Amino acid sequence: MSTIEVTDRTRLRRGPKRASYDRETIYRILDEALVCHIGASMHGGPAVQPNFHWRIGDELYVHGSSRNGLFQSILAGESACITVTLLDGLVFARSAFHHSANFRSVMLYGKGRRVEDPVEKRQALDSMLEKFSPGRSAEARPPNETEMKATAVIAFPIEEVSAKIRSGGPVDDAEDLDWPAWSGVRPLITTLGDLIPD
Amino acid sequence: MSTIEVTDRTRLRRGPKRASYDRETIYRILDEALVCHIGASMHGGPAVQPNFHWRIGDELYVHGSSRNGLFQSILAGESACITVTLLDGLVFARSAFHHSANFRSVMLYGKGRRVEDPVEKRQALDSMLEKFSPGRSAEARPPNETEMKATAVIAFPIEEVSAKIRSGGPVDDAEDLDWPAWSGVRPLITTLGDLIPD
Repeated sequence: MSTIEVTDRTRLRRGPKRASYDRETIYRILDEALVCHIGASMHGGPAVQPNFHWRIGDELYVHGSSRNGLFQSILAGESACITVTLLDGLVFARSAFHHSANFRSVMLYGKGRRVEDPVEKRQALDSMLEKFSPGRSAEARPPNETEMKATAVIAFPIEEVSAKIRSGGPVDDAEDLDWPAWSGVRPLITTLGDLIPD
Repeated sequence: MSTIEVTDRTRLRRGPKRASYDRETIYRILDEALVCHIGASMHGGPAVQPNFHWRIGDELYVHGSSRNGLFQSILAGESACITVTLLDGLVFARSAFHHSANFRSVMLYGKGRRVEDPVEKRQALDSMLEKFSPGRSAEARPPNETEMKATAVIAFPIEEVSAKIRSGGPVDDAEDLDWPAWSGVRPLITTLGDLIPD
């Protein structure tokens, strides 16, 4: 695994110590997160839509309706920014100012490539199902031609990308350590419940 | 509570039955969600940053470093799109195509107003602390002048906004109902753990 080259867009100016350009670190965050937020220009201004994402090798994939407006913008060549955020905890400091959050986030900039080859597209969609439930792509009724046509799959190179990570307890100023307020971290725990059968 | 007027940017074209323009519904989603994703133009293209948000009346607030590049773009007059997503469950259908997600999301478009009045700004920041832990704003060491200056607070009118909601089980095609794959919903449960004291 390599280190990502930093660009003007990915250089973290605020909190640079929290930045990571380590490909493995970035991939771990992308693989753990279920939801991403895709930003691109639409109707003459920015729009941000939630989506699922998944990774195959060095590309990040999203899918949606072929008629999705944001997808059409991206496929027409608009640059996108895809951001993934895992909120790990709320950080309560003694001072209001030093309240913070533990999180792991990734911001990826780039242009999307429409996955058109039917074999590649099918493999990509299978790969998404596998992320949510290993084995699922062999169990579910496979997509037919109409469904494949209704679905757009877009791949983004994981090249212009950065991670930002905060972990650990509150960092208060020395003079506040005796301030009579409780302090610490409340972890945020996300779990998948048992299946509610249809 | 009123119904929000639909604009070109907020009219849901994909899945219009899942749209809501009901102010109360939108406020409930905004109030429950901790994280938002803010998109605006920066470095000549879209950038999407995660942030905390909170609501006071009919305005949505975010805060951050006064030197945050995205904030500076917004304060220079760039239009923003703020999106909030609550993922409630993974929906497993019998067919690959009808796999879906249960979610509640809000997309808000608008321009930000810098909160400059010191009293209003302090109240806004207190209000954010209260969202995360009721009573906290009276316990924590209050922000001093330097800290207030380092913090930018931006308010957005909750006017050009829509919600999109999916709930319930999978919706398979009639001819797939006998397909031998399990189906149903796996709920996503997010909880706050006990405080890990500093």
